[in-house]
Amino acid sequence: MGFGDARTEWILRLCAIICLVLTVFLMGFDKETTQIFGVDKTASFRSLGALKVIMFVDSIAAAYNILQLAKCWISAHPKPPFQLQTHFHLPLFWLSFFIDQAGAYLTFAANTAGMEAAFVAVRGNQEFQWMKLCNRFHRYCYQAAGAFLCGYAAVLTMLLISFLSAFNLFRHYSPNHFLRLKPNNN
Amino acid sequence: MGFGDARTEWILRLCAIICLVLTVFLMGFDKETTQIFGVDKTASFRSLGALKVIMFVDSIAAAYNILQLAKCWISAHPKPPFQLQTHFHLPLFWLSFFIDQAGAYLTFAANTAGMEAAFVAVRGNQEFQWMKLCNRFHRYCYQAAGAFLCGYAAVLTMLLISFLSAFNLFRHYSPNHFLRLKPNNN
Repeated sequence: MGFGDARTEWILRLCAIICLVLTVFLMGFDKETTQIFGVDKTASFRSLGALKVIMFVDSIAAAYNILQLAKCWISAHPKPPFQLQTHFHLPLFWLSFFIDQAGAYLTFAANTAGMEAAFVAVRGNQEFQWMKLCNRFHRYCYQAAGAFLCGYAAVLTMLLISFLSAFNLFRHYSPNHFLRLKPNNN
Repeated sequence: MGFGDARTEWILRLCAIICLVLTVFLMGFDKETTQIFGVDKTASFRSLGALKVIMFVDSIAAAYNILQLAKCWISAHPKPPFQLQTHFHLPLFWLSFFIDQAGAYLTFAANTAGMEAAFVAVRGNQEFQWMKLCNRFHRYCYQAAGAFLCGYAAVLTMLLISFLSAFNLFRHYSPNHFLRLKPNNN
């Protein structure tokens, strides 16, 4: 792997970690209590299954990216036993390709499912008599919107990371033969 | 492009089209009317924004895959003027890489957002007083579940297609230099 894309990957993963941690904190510390029909109701991420899923997925994605950052740091300071052949690295490339893809898809899906639930909360649903909630939980909804914004920024960086890891994997294969490695590494 | 992966792509795109069309039809013709609190309520895909989005996204994805199938068919029967160099094809590979990625992400997100709305419909939300609906719309909910199943099958095939198009693009690049084409095509 060249110097250029190693540094790109490092920067992207750092951005992803910052956005993911911000999302988790904004979502986790978001709480508001209001009276609805004379009963105290508290809105927090525990109220909606979709928000719990976001907290879970984003935390795991952040932990995974921290691990990858550590790997980048080790391979940027290689000691002689770490300088291995490309063909030895290939299973590692496949592994990080699959996990990066899964990470991008899962964070995107979790965020979008959360947004869908949030839309119901903002606009309500007349036909099904699901009531609007954001006219009662103002501050909660603004903070949640900030969390979604950070969440989508994280999704964008993880999307770019997944492109980069696909690139780092598939560039080792021959352009003319299906799933055959290139004979000479140029 | 070799024979093996052209045929793989053809089969995958055909599967994706079948699943997408099935999803759209199952969702589109799903309708049920029941009395809730003495008022006639009709459940259809028009009742929920998320289901309208699924209909829209899945229709466009199916149309795009039909176009790509036509392209596969043309490039499988090449007449002399169509036999072009790889370097000429590269912008086409980049284009189909981006559209395939977008297709996979959008269908996945649309399906997942729809599922989230469906979960609210199945289980309700005690805290926010959103009521359960699937105990009133039995047949509707079973057919919608079938539509989601087909939708996820379509997402899976589009995911595989997006891997294949990433492979077809990035295999043309050098493994040692960032974003540089390989000097000799082996």
